[in-house]
Amino acid sequence: MNLPFYDEVDVKASILMPEAIHAMRNAFLALSNGSAIVPNRINLPMEDQNALHLSMPAYINGGAYNTIKLVNVHFDNPQKGLPLINGVILVMNAKKGNPLALVEGKSVTALRTGAGTGLATDLLARRNSKRAIIFGTGAQAKTQIDAIRCVRNLTSIIVIGRSEEKAIKFCNLFDSIVQPGEMSDLKRADIICTATTSKTPLFDFEDIKAGVHINAIGAHQADTRELGTSLIQKSKVYIDQLSSSQIEAGDLIIPINEGKYNWNNIEGELGELIDKKIAGRTSENEITIFNSIGNAVQDLVIASMVFEKNQT
Amino acid sequence: MNLPFYDEVDVKASILMPEAIHAMRNAFLALSNGSAIVPNRINLPMEDQNALHLSMPAYINGGAYNTIKLVNVHFDNPQKGLPLINGVILVMNAKKGNPLALVEGKSVTALRTGAGTGLATDLLARRNSKRAIIFGTGAQAKTQIDAIRCVRNLTSIIVIGRSEEKAIKFCNLFDSIVQPGEMSDLKRADIICTATTSKTPLFDFEDIKAGVHINAIGAHQADTRELGTSLIQKSKVYIDQLSSSQIEAGDLIIPINEGKYNWNNIEGELGELIDKKIAGRTSENEITIFNSIGNAVQDLVIASMVFEKNQT
Repeated sequence: MNLPFYDEVDVKASILMPEAIHAMRNAFLALSNGSAIVPNRINLPMEDQNALHLSMPAYINGGAYNTIKLVNVHFDNPQKGLPLINGVILVMNAKKGNPLALVEGKSVTALRTGAGTGLATDLLARRNSKRAIIFGTGAQAKTQIDAIRCVRNLTSIIVIGRSEEKAIKFCNLFDSIVQPGEMSDLKRADIICTATTSKTPLFDFEDIKAGVHINAIGAHQADTRELGTSLIQKSKVYIDQLSSSQIEAGDLIIPINEGKYNWNNIEGELGELIDKKIAGRTSENEITIFNSIGNAVQDLVIASMVFEKNQT
Repeated sequence: MNLPFYDEVDVKASILMPEAIHAMRNAFLALSNGSAIVPNRINLPMEDQNALHLSMPAYINGGAYNTIKLVNVHFDNPQKGLPLINGVILVMNAKKGNPLALVEGKSVTALRTGAGTGLATDLLARRNSKRAIIFGTGAQAKTQIDAIRCVRNLTSIIVIGRSEEKAIKFCNLFDSIVQPGEMSDLKRADIICTATTSKTPLFDFEDIKAGVHINAIGAHQADTRELGTSLIQKSKVYIDQLSSSQIEAGDLIIPINEGKYNWNNIEGELGELIDKKIAGRTSENEITIFNSIGNAVQDLVIASMVFEKNQT
């Protein structure tokens, strides 16, 4: 007996971005209304390998599947020409308990992170948003672009990477709307996505224009961030889940620890916005931020869809 | 791409009990000397399914593999004719991070639990032990018998089940040395294994003879036990790992909570005994107990062996 293994090609062939964005509604709703069961992840250090293993199970009450994403991060891998991250998701039958399939993890992570941004952008960005800027040139940056293009008619997408060379190479994956750019382009952006491993702010309030929507998805440790303190202070901030943001969302934790921000200052969770329990954008001049650290329930929803799409 | 899946038949064909017993030396040594990395397991409740999911990762410093055992327990399954427990173990390359194989979980659990008993019995039971009694007629009871036969020349193995019918059926899996019996047989036993789901003591000090060795492997919740308080008080008790026993070993936690026993009263961990840091049996009349709740490092060692044996 072999379990089916759905690899990156299968994931991409199974789910288009608009479907993934739509599926995120249920994921974030479940997270906010308490029907999602997402324990704190296990972090198993493998110090002698300069690596760590993460285990992230999830279930939504009433659902047909439970899943666990299993990730190994090997920090020395890139210098050996090996991938930094290896991940798989095991899909199980929640009603009977038996394992059903493995799904490649990184492609699901990229798809669901993009889809979360797509949903948040659809809910929060100005309708007439035309220009976007993306920070980052990795797998996450790719799906950020795919996602925001699904929900707004963009005429320009500027990419800023750590080197111009990387940005040019990355832009060649797309059509001519996507072009490398510079920090000075920030002032014209209607939508900004940050998908980097930066530990310090990429920009702050004075660098951007009024009315922009920002998706900050790169930082997910208490001591790293992509956004400056005054930007956080002057924006409407939406998150994926309060309990996990309080542990991992450096973009918010750092200003809070500095006494310059407070958890009471955030608007709330994306699921509360979907559920109309909190307000979204109420003027053309507000800055809105979706600060996402990512959640295993998003993996659950996407991996389950990959499995279902491949049953005939 | 498919990962290889080694099922129950593969597990049994790959590793014989004597090899498994030998492998447990490294597992228990690693547990006691600190080279095993075994975080607390995740327990994800799926209350609407009357089920739970358990995630149990493990790694030994310097090892070639890291593993995680993923178990679903569906309490309504047996009445539907489905297995109570479904489990798989994912074997990963600890040096590079990539997933390598899946191994069926229940067969590994049964093999490693038996092997732990085999090792403890070899270290603690009297050399001339001839008669054994087994409580239980399930998969765990089966490997308890296989294991103790590997380390002592037994002339009689008595099985006690919840019904005589179950015991007879179970004994038919073995040769004529294994026979159903009664509680009165306890007084003649040199080795006793308890592998039941009993919540209350199966027997106590007055029911057994001097010099017996007991393997108690059935209870692994703080409020369930197989052994009576006075038996615990009057025996030399060895455990798998102090930190996990303090959470899950009802055989010890219940007497301790009653004020009748103390963690200082135990002899120590099996790994400390292997490492000669603590003494084992020092007289023919002592009662020795191996109280095991099971540990993910045992799964790591056995699942890794299954993977290695199947590489050619």
